[in-house]
Amino acid sequence: MSNFREQALHYHAHPVPGKISVELTKPAETVKDLALAYSPGVAEPVREIAADPAAAYQYTGKGNMVAVISNGTAILGLGNLGPLASKPVMEGKALLFKRFAGLDSIDIEVKHRTTEDFINTVANIADTFGGINLEDIKAPECFEIEKALIERCDIPVFHDDQHGTAIVTAAGMLNALEIQGKDIHDAIIVCLGAGAAAIACMELLIKCGAQREHIYMLDRKGVIHTRRDDLNEYKKLFANNTDKRTLLDVIAEADVFVGVSGPDLLKPEELKLMADKPVVFACSNPDPEIHPELAHSVRKDLIMATGRSDFPNQVNNVLCFPFIFRGALDVRATAINDEMKIAAVEAIRSIAKEPVPEEVLRAADVESLEFGPQYIIPKPMDPRLLPRIAKAVAHAAIESGVAQVDLPENYMAHHKAQ
Amino acid sequence: MSNFREQALHYHAHPVPGKISVELTKPAETVKDLALAYSPGVAEPVREIAADPAAAYQYTGKGNMVAVISNGTAILGLGNLGPLASKPVMEGKALLFKRFAGLDSIDIEVKHRTTEDFINTVANIADTFGGINLEDIKAPECFEIEKALIERCDIPVFHDDQHGTAIVTAAGMLNALEIQGKDIHDAIIVCLGAGAAAIACMELLIKCGAQREHIYMLDRKGVIHTRRDDLNEYKKLFANNTDKRTLLDVIAEADVFVGVSGPDLLKPEELKLMADKPVVFACSNPDPEIHPELAHSVRKDLIMATGRSDFPNQVNNVLCFPFIFRGALDVRATAINDEMKIAAVEAIRSIAKEPVPEEVLRAADVESLEFGPQYIIPKPMDPRLLPRIAKAVAHAAIESGVAQVDLPENYMAHHKAQ
Repeated sequence: MSNFREQALHYHAHPVPGKISVELTKPAETVKDLALAYSPGVAEPVREIAADPAAAYQYTGKGNMVAVISNGTAILGLGNLGPLASKPVMEGKALLFKRFAGLDSIDIEVKHRTTEDFINTVANIADTFGGINLEDIKAPECFEIEKALIERCDIPVFHDDQHGTAIVTAAGMLNALEIQGKDIHDAIIVCLGAGAAAIACMELLIKCGAQREHIYMLDRKGVIHTRRDDLNEYKKLFANNTDKRTLLDVIAEADVFVGVSGPDLLKPEELKLMADKPVVFACSNPDPEIHPELAHSVRKDLIMATGRSDFPNQVNNVLCFPFIFRGALDVRATAINDEMKIAAVEAIRSIAKEPVPEEVLRAADVESLEFGPQYIIPKPMDPRLLPRIAKAVAHAAIESGVAQVDLPENYMAHHKAQ
Repeated sequence: MSNFREQALHYHAHPVPGKISVELTKPAETVKDLALAYSPGVAEPVREIAADPAAAYQYTGKGNMVAVISNGTAILGLGNLGPLASKPVMEGKALLFKRFAGLDSIDIEVKHRTTEDFINTVANIADTFGGINLEDIKAPECFEIEKALIERCDIPVFHDDQHGTAIVTAAGMLNALEIQGKDIHDAIIVCLGAGAAAIACMELLIKCGAQREHIYMLDRKGVIHTRRDDLNEYKKLFANNTDKRTLLDVIAEADVFVGVSGPDLLKPEELKLMADKPVVFACSNPDPEIHPELAHSVRKDLIMATGRSDFPNQVNNVLCFPFIFRGALDVRATAINDEMKIAAVEAIRSIAKEPVPEEVLRAADVESLEFGPQYIIPKPMDPRLLPRIAKAVAHAAIESGVAQVDLPENYMAHHKAQ
């Protein structure tokens, strides 16, 4: 691990610090080039945009640019280390946007004085970008921040820790339940953790058919129930009218366990109590709520997912965020709405059910992958993710009325050209 | 011109919109690459920066990143068209930073609600960058904005419309006066225009030896004098205790005319009244205060500069801003102070006095260039600008105590490696 630490630091420091650079997309060699790029030529697109703001998509990089914005209050699992310390993560996210979806992406680290001030700062700079990916902002402030920015900005604002996680979780969960022969409408769901990701996952599962009263959410104090008086407005939506108080109380006969909490918090004896053919998403990273080997040794009828790449069924946000932004930006969507999120869920689900391309098998270093308990979610290196998810999301944007332009006829060829 | 207009729009729109993109500087192909670039590897530089903020320069792109920030209130000569319309200019500036100094640069367009709100927004995002170039912000707000941001940020904040213009003007002016056999200390200076660039030019000339009481500044109402009661605090510093009221009054026997105003505002009959061997910087763009051919027909003993590339002696900010930021960032200067600005002036002056490289002659399409009335300022394509100005500025930063690190021994080789 010390070796990995050194490799990670070396990767970030050499040959140049950081992971992204800015490059020119136009010639800038001759005096003539510069007269077009800057004064006096640049006055022409300025006039066009002053006359019609939409011209910014034609003459500037706005339409392909995603800002990754954080205040550093919830960096990975490391906590509130402030904006500057979050910079490597945000640059990493920018790298992933480019790598997976060809989106130009830059990080912006924002000092958080007050929530209102943070919101105002991001709203003030939003015109610069085609979309904003909020990242590593702690709950419950993240809910208020996202809501306010969605209202104030006319570009998509998406808190990936919430919705990216929720979309990939929902896709895997619906596939797992299908394999187990269960209907999400009837499923009893235990959610250990009540932070941003947990709440977003449960809200999206409800939109996908789960029943709110079938969900038991637990925070550090135990089950969230209607007689508690210490709940914020977001947790309150999950207050269950129940006498059950502990994980042990609610896990019995549960169909689904979703862990967004901490290592080893689901005990083998609790797993044993779950209903037949349970589904366990133990997403605490790097150490899941229950180790997959231990879990499978206790329950042979289990389908399990984790946040780790070294076990089957990794719940990895990179399966969603590059592509949902790609689709949203390609039709200049003014928001990423529920229809677009659910379109992403369905696209991810369907890819997992189809034969896997050779290159994906090679990248994953496996001989075969077939839809089933060991393969409910596509792999991150799957080249089908970009065209399928982006297209599904773009169409959902058009159908739900938030798109400002149609898709070009040669839609995916267009991305290859970039 | 219609043809040039179409070329400029085509340049901005094809093959992709805009002029800059974000690219990866690190491998991101394999699962292993991504584990270093993002989770879990990225946690290591996060921890290092949390422990020591200076580590951000080692593990992120901060130290090579300049933000070009505008509110769009004074776009080129086009006026207040708002932040979005300024985007092509800001992207153009970012392109120039990369092209001339290898600096990664991105544009940020900021909604301007109030001056305080604008300042606060920029201060909140400043940690992201190694330096901030303010651009196209109207006077007098630009003075307050720059002053407040310099106080609040621990990175260089530089309003190029003021100081870039002032540095190049001062370099050319001092060389012109030297050729004319005049001492700036004795020079009578008329400055037509009292905006941000005019005020910054005069302040820097004073730091280079000009006497404040020898300067006559004029705004739209005429000479700025001590009995006017309509002056903001910045103009007030130039209120001259004089009975002269018009350009005609002050131009007689003046040694220097600096125009930062509008086309054709200096009449031939006024030019005729200037002292022997006058220096005229007619910087209104694209149409100067007096056309060079007309001016030279009236005064054979004239040295003249304009803002245009199609006449000798172009006062072009690109001679300064990429290189002053390069030098400042290379020693992690906390500010760009007067010592650094004057070091840039002296470096630019000295380059103009030395033999011109072949490639510069070719790029300028001339057979020879020799220090004299037709060549007082280097050409923008001169490859000596980067090493000479950056090094002079970096050393001035070190000597004046605002540098945080020393220059590497192999200083300019280091840039070539990028």
